[in-house]
Amino acid sequence: MSARPPILVDLKFDPETVARILKTAFPDRGSINIADPASKNRDLTGIDYALLWKPDADLFTRAPNLKAIFSGGAGVDSFMNLPGLPDVPIVRFVDRSLTTRMSEWVVLQCLMHLRQQYQHDKDQRARIWGKLVPPEAAEITVGIMGLGVLGQDAARKLKIMGFNVIGWSRSGKEIDGVETFGAGELDEFLSRTDFLVGLLPLTPETTGFYNAKLFTKLRQGGALGKPVFINAGRGKSQVQADIVAAVQNGVLGGASLDVFAVEPLPSDDPLWGLENVFITPHDAAVSDETALFRHVEHQIARYESGEPLQFIVDRQAGY
Amino acid sequence: MSARPPILVDLKFDPETVARILKTAFPDRGSINIADPASKNRDLTGIDYALLWKPDADLFTRAPNLKAIFSGGAGVDSFMNLPGLPDVPIVRFVDRSLTTRMSEWVVLQCLMHLRQQYQHDKDQRARIWGKLVPPEAAEITVGIMGLGVLGQDAARKLKIMGFNVIGWSRSGKEIDGVETFGAGELDEFLSRTDFLVGLLPLTPETTGFYNAKLFTKLRQGGALGKPVFINAGRGKSQVQADIVAAVQNGVLGGASLDVFAVEPLPSDDPLWGLENVFITPHDAAVSDETALFRHVEHQIARYESGEPLQFIVDRQAGY
Repeated sequence: MSARPPILVDLKFDPETVARILKTAFPDRGSINIADPASKNRDLTGIDYALLWKPDADLFTRAPNLKAIFSGGAGVDSFMNLPGLPDVPIVRFVDRSLTTRMSEWVVLQCLMHLRQQYQHDKDQRARIWGKLVPPEAAEITVGIMGLGVLGQDAARKLKIMGFNVIGWSRSGKEIDGVETFGAGELDEFLSRTDFLVGLLPLTPETTGFYNAKLFTKLRQGGALGKPVFINAGRGKSQVQADIVAAVQNGVLGGASLDVFAVEPLPSDDPLWGLENVFITPHDAAVSDETALFRHVEHQIARYESGEPLQFIVDRQAGY
Repeated sequence: MSARPPILVDLKFDPETVARILKTAFPDRGSINIADPASKNRDLTGIDYALLWKPDADLFTRAPNLKAIFSGGAGVDSFMNLPGLPDVPIVRFVDRSLTTRMSEWVVLQCLMHLRQQYQHDKDQRARIWGKLVPPEAAEITVGIMGLGVLGQDAARKLKIMGFNVIGWSRSGKEIDGVETFGAGELDEFLSRTDFLVGLLPLTPETTGFYNAKLFTKLRQGGALGKPVFINAGRGKSQVQADIVAAVQNGVLGGASLDVFAVEPLPSDDPLWGLENVFITPHDAAVSDETALFRHVEHQIARYESGEPLQFIVDRQAGY
């Protein structure tokens, strides 16, 4: 058949969708879908490229000669610690659609908290005409943690909606029109933040990062009284018991969470029922398979024609 | 006493707030608050300026010598039909804060419908992990009716959030980057609209305008399947029984309503309990009294120094 070995695909997304879209993807080299029972005992030693999201633990042992690895999402934490991870370029998925969807979610959550949608919804169910006069966006400072492609797009859109926006990143990035803070300025950043938007990658440094101690450093007494925590990064960056306690004891006025340490979030988890907490099932920015496969094809074409790969992960930083 | 007659104030807003803020407003001429019992039998024939929102029906009879009238809101329909309305300039309230708040509400409602917040909220209350993959904003066409200050600001912000935006106005205004339609192109405009955003003033022409017949002209089979009606203009522009029927029989996929023919919306109204309908109690863009009084002071200062008043209502058009 083709001289080019097929692309190895191990995406723990919706299996039917992946299988369906794979049928017509990668026409010039084909693919091996790990989810396909026929792939079970297949020899993978000749495979050059793998596209992965939460892959099997033995993936790199079975495919030890990869030349490049592509992540199925914006993050790469789902396979960075697997045994046998080869020392080859790892490419994140960066896509206009993924970025747009994430900003839709972030702006929606900020507006729901600003405009007290939780109370409006409660009033509606009780058929109560409960006029509310919330502050306007300019009175709220949104502090974004993580200023990559997603964080920068969200910052721009929140500013246009009228919010006061500040940003924090480890490396202290500069962004036009947004006051930014670096590694050593975390406490100052937090003390000025009313809505904390988490878009950090999961690394050893960010594991358990959003915890009780951090929540107490957010601004109290802002225009809505209490700060709000909004996380669309990674679930393992947050200490969920601390979120529950902080909402219950009033350190936080509310939260929006799309990601959780264990997914799906178990049905007996107290987060589901908290006042002014919005839960979404890790669908803030779902990778669109068609766009993902197109991106991988494009990057492989670049690589094979001698151009550099884009969106390469810094293995030292872990993202 | 001052040589300048006080400003007559009849604002059916929150009475305590109006009374409190009036204490320090208009320092150079003072005010007469109609809500104050002491004003009951006061002679108002020497009054030059009135600031009104849903004023008493005999207001113009009691104050027949007004030189200019100021509305407490963006619309003027609350007093255009009162007996004795004098033939003097009528000034709408246009304010950055009012505009910003209205756009917050419009963008919030569009994002809630796009991201299926109603279903997410239902799932959350049932503790169901129900991943949804909605279309992205670019797949939805928002059609804005009414392209004044509010409509133009909402259009700009919706576009930045990624929505495809088109606009309709009686006079067929041109807006940079937004395809617009005029009086004779209503059906074409509606046939391309997924989310209809109503920001029309209330006039005889717009009374009962959003009705069953109009809803059937909206695009069926768009990216969310069914169209959505979003009204932040005036309640009397909509036929509420038709909204209820259209949601129940599937002509509309949902709605967001901030305004109603009768306010407060009676607790037995079927609108409260409809699937995918968001109700807010006419608080999309609440006039900020401090900003309103400043605006009136500023306009009077212009008028008395010989400069033209701004934001004057076209009495022929009624807005």
